[in-house]
Amino acid sequence: MLKANGYVIIGLGRFGSSLGKELMKLGYEVLGIDKDEEAVQEMSDILTHAVVAECTDEEVLRSLGVRNFDCGVVAIGDDIQASILTTIQLKDLGVKKVVAKAISELHGRVLEKLGVDRVVYPERDMGIRVAHQLVSPNLLDYIELSADYSIAELTVPRGLDGKSLQEINPRAKYGCSIVAINKTSGVIIAPTAGEVLRERDVLVVIGTNDQIDKFEHAVAK
Amino acid sequence: MLKANGYVIIGLGRFGSSLGKELMKLGYEVLGIDKDEEAVQEMSDILTHAVVAECTDEEVLRSLGVRNFDCGVVAIGDDIQASILTTIQLKDLGVKKVVAKAISELHGRVLEKLGVDRVVYPERDMGIRVAHQLVSPNLLDYIELSADYSIAELTVPRGLDGKSLQEINPRAKYGCSIVAINKTSGVIIAPTAGEVLRERDVLVVIGTNDQIDKFEHAVAK
Amino acid sequence: MLKANGYVIIGLGRFGSSLGKELMKLGYEVLGIDKDEEAVQEMSDILTHAVVAECTDEEVLRSLGVRNFDCGVVAIGDDIQASILTTIQLKDLGVKKVVAKAISELHGRVLEKLGVDRVVYPERDMGIRVAHQLVSPNLLDYIELSADYSIAELTVPRGLDGKSLQEINPRAKYGCSIVAINKTSGVIIAPTAGEVLRERDVLVVIGTNDQIDKFEHAVAK
Amino acid sequence: MLKANGYVIIGLGRFGSSLGKELMKLGYEVLGIDKDEEAVQEMSDILTHAVVAECTDEEVLRSLGVRNFDCGVVAIGDDIQASILTTIQLKDLGVKKVVAKAISELHGRVLEKLGVDRVVYPERDMGIRVAHQLVSPNLLDYIELSADYSIAELTVPRGLDGKSLQEINPRAKYGCSIVAINKTSGVIIAPTAGEVLRERDVLVVIGTNDQIDKFEHAVAK
Amino acid sequence: MLKANGYVIIGLGRFGSSLGKELMKLGYEVLGIDKDEEAVQEMSDILTHAVVAECTDEEVLRSLGVRNFDCGVVAIGDDIQASILTTIQLKDLGVKKVVAKAISELHGRVLEKLGVDRVVYPERDMGIRVAHQLVSPNLLDYIELSADYSIAELTVPRGLDGKSLQEINPRAKYGCSIVAINKTSGVIIAPTAGEVLRERDVLVVIGTNDQIDKFEHAVAK
Amino acid sequence: MLKANGYVIIGLGRFGSSLGKELMKLGYEVLGIDKDEEAVQEMSDILTHAVVAECTDEEVLRSLGVRNFDCGVVAIGDDIQASILTTIQLKDLGVKKVVAKAISELHGRVLEKLGVDRVVYPERDMGIRVAHQLVSPNLLDYIELSADYSIAELTVPRGLDGKSLQEINPRAKYGCSIVAINKTSGVIIAPTAGEVLRERDVLVVIGTNDQIDKFEHAVAK
Amino acid sequence: MLKANGYVIIGLGRFGSSLGKELMKLGYEVLGIDKDEEAVQEMSDILTHAVVAECTDEEVLRSLGVRNFDCGVVAIGDDIQASILTTIQLKDLGVKKVVAKAISELHGRVLEKLGVDRVVYPERDMGIRVAHQLVSPNLLDYIELSADYSIAELTVPRGLDGKSLQEINPRAKYGCSIVAINKTSGVIIAPTAGEVLRERDVLVVIGTNDQIDKFEHAVAK
Amino acid sequence: MLKANGYVIIGLGRFGSSLGKELMKLGYEVLGIDKDEEAVQEMSDILTHAVVAECTDEEVLRSLGVRNFDCGVVAIGDDIQASILTTIQLKDLGVKKVVAKAISELHGRVLEKLGVDRVVYPERDMGIRVAHQLVSPNLLDYIELSADYSIAELTVPRGLDGKSLQEINPRAKYGCSIVAINKTSGVIIAPTAGEVLRERDVLVVIGTNDQIDKFEHAVAK
Repeated sequence: MLKANGYVIIGLGRFGSSLGKELMKLGYEVLGIDKDEEAVQEMSDILTHAVVAECTDEEVLRSLGVRNFDCGVVAIGDDIQASILTTIQLKDLGVKKVVAKAISELHGRVLEKLGVDRVVYPERDMGIRVAHQLVSPNLLDYIELSADYSIAELTVPRGLDGKSLQEINPRAKYGCSIVAINKTSGVIIAPTAGEVLRERDVLVVIGTNDQIDKFEHAVAK
Repeated sequence: MLKANGYVIIGLGRFGSSLGKELMKLGYEVLGIDKDEEAVQEMSDILTHAVVAECTDEEVLRSLGVRNFDCGVVAIGDDIQASILTTIQLKDLGVKKVVAKAISELHGRVLEKLGVDRVVYPERDMGIRVAHQLVSPNLLDYIELSADYSIAELTVPRGLDGKSLQEINPRAKYGCSIVAINKTSGVIIAPTAGEVLRERDVLVVIGTNDQIDKFEHAVAK
Repeated sequence: MLKANGYVIIGLGRFGSSLGKELMKLGYEVLGIDKDEEAVQEMSDILTHAVVAECTDEEVLRSLGVRNFDCGVVAIGDDIQASILTTIQLKDLGVKKVVAKAISELHGRVLEKLGVDRVVYPERDMGIRVAHQLVSPNLLDYIELSADYSIAELTVPRGLDGKSLQEINPRAKYGCSIVAINKTSGVIIAPTAGEVLRERDVLVVIGTNDQIDKFEHAVAK
Repeated sequence: MLKANGYVIIGLGRFGSSLGKELMKLGYEVLGIDKDEEAVQEMSDILTHAVVAECTDEEVLRSLGVRNFDCGVVAIGDDIQASILTTIQLKDLGVKKVVAKAISELHGRVLEKLGVDRVVYPERDMGIRVAHQLVSPNLLDYIELSADYSIAELTVPRGLDGKSLQEINPRAKYGCSIVAINKTSGVIIAPTAGEVLRERDVLVVIGTNDQIDKFEHAVAK
Repeated sequence: MLKANGYVIIGLGRFGSSLGKELMKLGYEVLGIDKDEEAVQEMSDILTHAVVAECTDEEVLRSLGVRNFDCGVVAIGDDIQASILTTIQLKDLGVKKVVAKAISELHGRVLEKLGVDRVVYPERDMGIRVAHQLVSPNLLDYIELSADYSIAELTVPRGLDGKSLQEINPRAKYGCSIVAINKTSGVIIAPTAGEVLRERDVLVVIGTNDQIDKFEHAVAK
Repeated sequence: MLKANGYVIIGLGRFGSSLGKELMKLGYEVLGIDKDEEAVQEMSDILTHAVVAECTDEEVLRSLGVRNFDCGVVAIGDDIQASILTTIQLKDLGVKKVVAKAISELHGRVLEKLGVDRVVYPERDMGIRVAHQLVSPNLLDYIELSADYSIAELTVPRGLDGKSLQEINPRAKYGCSIVAINKTSGVIIAPTAGEVLRERDVLVVIGTNDQIDKFEHAVAK
Repeated sequence: MLKANGYVIIGLGRFGSSLGKELMKLGYEVLGIDKDEEAVQEMSDILTHAVVAECTDEEVLRSLGVRNFDCGVVAIGDDIQASILTTIQLKDLGVKKVVAKAISELHGRVLEKLGVDRVVYPERDMGIRVAHQLVSPNLLDYIELSADYSIAELTVPRGLDGKSLQEINPRAKYGCSIVAINKTSGVIIAPTAGEVLRERDVLVVIGTNDQIDKFEHAVAK
Repeated sequence: MLKANGYVIIGLGRFGSSLGKELMKLGYEVLGIDKDEEAVQEMSDILTHAVVAECTDEEVLRSLGVRNFDCGVVAIGDDIQASILTTIQLKDLGVKKVVAKAISELHGRVLEKLGVDRVVYPERDMGIRVAHQLVSPNLLDYIELSADYSIAELTVPRGLDGKSLQEINPRAKYGCSIVAINKTSGVIIAPTAGEVLRERDVLVVIGTNDQIDKFEHAVAK
């Protein structure tokens, strides 16, 4: 049995296996469980342990020592019933923290009633994120700080090549600030006004959504 | 026919429908297409237009005027064949920008060979994102600036309640800087050293991954 | 729409339809819902209303006015997912009393977490009941009062034909009491010692399980 | 081979397995048979013997020594054909008592023609029982003595807390009698008029259905 | 509705439809019923009436007036359950004579228990009949009178061409008698000894199985 | 390998297995082949040899030495393709006599084109045979000699009990002759006029269909 | 009904529809039949007539007037049974010429026994043709005149660019003759010795397989 | 592992297995791969190597050493997805020449985008070829040299029997030339004017399509 105080992931589909790989990279122990033999075999060299098991069977989770894990993630794909029956068992076994993936709002509500610590909606969240990137072609990534404020990571368009921050002066013209510039030579935090931009540099901008929006559209021309 | 220069989304599953909803919120016109009648009906009140159609049939996309859209998103779920055959048609019809969802690396390689502008892997990317949030309980969101540098959005733990930035002094102690604080009273950009933190405030920190990591673990004690 | 303050039964299988029929007999209004057209048609002349609907769809229950009913019974057969998703909606719609059928202990535990007022296990309970009837051939029915005490309904075997209660004297010999005798001429409550038994009469006996057991075996000889 | 003069149960679904468990508890030997390996495995530690076998094959029942059992129960779930073909073989093998589960009235009629000693309808019977409990919230269980007379087990509502039987006087006011009271301290058979009720005590009442009904509704106010 | 006192055939497969056609040829009215639309359509021009109906549904047979028919034939192909449930309904509806096709001995035993007037095994009986024809190449048809005696219809082999019955003398040589000769010019009953045989004439022979066998082998040389 | 000059039967369904059993009874060697393991196992104790094989594979029949058999019977049930592909191989392998079962006229026509020696239609022929028995309740069996003439085996009805052949005089009254009487004491061939009939005796009558029909109806009154 | 003396094609898969299109191009009338609605719809604008029909049903082909066509092509894809049953009907209806596609040699043998005028094996033949093209990279197409002789269509490799036929002199060096040269300016039949070749010209060569082979390998160097 | 510089064929259906057989005949080494065990077994004695493998799995092709082959043929039947995913892997593994079978034009376009050296459409091409043969009954085979010119192989009809080339004079009358005559005695290349034709001889004619057409129709009268 696994010397456990890492993560147990139940469901090794696209979300679960990507989660598992990243946790391993971050240096944690991961036990992966799936009822599909092929899915398990693919992860067997990547995770600390990967096991074929039917997680809705009450004995199975117990015998795998799941209770000893710090955190259980129910990453089961499309089978709502299996997701729910597995979740209640993780909770009843006393797993400290249980995270579960939901595929619909209704599913999410059931998971919350069962006392899950966190419900994640991977496809819904990625849909929102990709929407923002589509409408702002220079937008690489962003964090929503509040309903109004965001931090945005923007590529520098051709039009700004060779210009200094002083010339662009985003704070004065649009109200937003440049937090950092990622240049091929390295990341410059809190850059000075004399810093000159090059095409393909990446700016980190903070401000209200409107300010960032205006800045982006102005420089993208 | 839709007066088009918005987005056409093919595949209205969890990812595609979330993407469509967000684009509508952002003020764009969206045509959604799916072969499943139920999926289309659910989106018919939300998108500008939602149509039941078999997108691998050559005549269909033409008759829907898909060529007039600025951007086409192939968000087809698990059917790799349909994803590929739809993608090549969008390209051949002359859609300016084509984005496609891939469910495996092999699938992604084919899409790139077909000239897709961007391949997205929603489940894989969310797996990575959730992994980081799991291992850093205070981490709400983050942007990877480079292999070394990140911006992180962290909740203020109980231990820091009532302390000023001066006392914490992250730059001196850990090397990373506080870019902003999100308090219930509003977002403070480039906060002064005298600013006092409260539990549940949210910090935006910039620095190397190591610096942020050390800062987070130190304050989380 | 049904003038509702009766019962809504979701799932018109063997259990649900029998429940609905009996409630109608008892003088209540019943709305029956099932996704299977055939099942609904069979009950359409029997219940106040019978409707074909997919109960896991959020809009459906709302549009059927389910919230106005006093009591909702989730009698869905083997589909645990549908049972759970329907149950959470009945609760969220504010139905005062929700009863749900479970097909396994795990299923029952989820239903309880969702706040169901009562979980029933028809097949399990009938299995127990039939077991008792099998091992006591004269036992028609019984109520378990506590772990020790029961009331039993027993047919009078040939051996007791013509004997008076005085001769049998169950209280003295076995410790249990005769509460009533059901004779073809009618039910005699608290029968006197002179009452004479006939084969096929039915006795109602109260006592500890041991006392009833001994009485039954003694007279069955 | 099993030293048999116990019970053989064919079909280990929810009804059959519950029946088997209870018979074991009551001290009998039970041989369980099912064609589904999983169902058999689950019962293998609980029953004296559990065997995977196809019971419609003529040789199988013979080779299992089924003829030596006192009683055979055909508890096959939804497969009417298997139920009938198994039943006729139990009868032809000379099993003394054969009990069979029916899922429809038509099915039941065939089983009777085949000479079955008793036909049980678990879901139908539980539907009726639950209906009575739903309409009488204080009703825990009941026995129908005849078309008119019943014995009912009722929880004492808050309104009766602290009242003596004399005050309530059900015989005078409603015509029905209190046969026993189940208190936390124990069961009192034929309680005296001075006995004082507490909320959550359980009353056993005998009388006509009308009398019990009136009594229940009066005290439930 | 059909003015009925003919035959109702339930199941219009190969056996049932052949039976129906022949009964029509013999001048009787026939109502054919099958749940398969195609099977019914094929017989709709041939039988008095052909109806698509699900015969295991209790109302259906009643509404078709099946009770008024002299004889009901359950000719259902491979579905033992449908065969049994239909049969019991024909019996309960009071059809005077019920004939049913069985596909196994076990199936036949159930049908007999249900009070069927005659059970037929078409494939089994034809297997036996064809076996006899295979081993005796000249045998066209036969009737088994008892375990020992048969009547056989035999083609005259080339070797007997031009011979008179006197020369062949089967009674003296083999013990069997020639009952009739079927010549192209017509059937001769009780032929005289002078009758001359031609190749392709057909003899009707009566005797013990041994006698017929020896006669056949002798003349076949 | 089987020392073959017996029969090879391909297809061990109801017809094929009945045929095989009867051939064994008649003293012949039989090789049975079926692709269904269960069907083969059931016949393995009954036939000389029973083999699981896919008969549409060209190598299989060759390796089983099928060419050495005197006669091959293609008794394949419902799979017309398998029936045809097996038949052409038996013919091409040089099996002397090939008999095949057809399930429709079209199927039969193909088999004839392939040079099959005899096509049998078991269900169709039994349908015709049972039709005759149904309309003539006393008819046990019959042989059609020509379009006009038949031999019929009839049970003696109650009305003829105690009557002599002289009294009945079928030849004079109806034109048909009594060929034999099967009495419990034995078969009487060419009975004399003084012979007295008993109920349940069986008559063998020869004549035109009309004559036999009239005789049967007259005596059945 | 189609004024027919063209072609009827049964089966509109890849082979059948390609055949139909080409026949239309060549100026003939074509009736296409398939049981699959989608396949028919796709060809409905291309063929004279396209009909959805089940061709194994005897009435269907008759009612479509198939007998009036000069030639029937059975181009049914993978369903051997349908192919055979359709073919025998075309023959029995008196269609003058019947061509049928076979998917295996066994299938082809049956079709020949049914009297088909020509059996085609599209996939097998294309496999052979592509094999030759693969091993001879310059080979475009070829005709096998006999076991030894072929005509081959070869692209002129870079090495022959600018050479005259005289220099190459294939007849003298390899024994084969140049029948024609296809140049961008047109086809030259029976070219003279002075003709100069250019890369990408196409030669038509006649000779024994060996001669052509040697020529091809020599010039390809 | 196979000493490879031959051909690897993925997909051993009718096209792939025919291709493989012919390549073996031509003296090349062939590795055949299919996921269907039966297909592989059938080819195991014919090809150098035949392997059961799932070719869309990235590791499989690598481990089979596919990269070492000169040429890979993707001959996968109907599964477009498998065809595409296999093709991209062959390309990425660096196989020098990749040929792939397409089942539709759209499929073919994808394959071309993936850089396939040659796309083949076996059924489409055979459809075209058979069309030409159907409309010209004497046409055995042909090569299209250009849009206008062809070489045709024609059987000599009865009407030309005994005639010399001089009498027929195709060049003068129709404009086309006789390149060769295939007689039972051998192939005559560039035949002289005195050559006399016999029925069943085969002519090789070169000319424009119109010339050949006219010649063929004139002589076929």
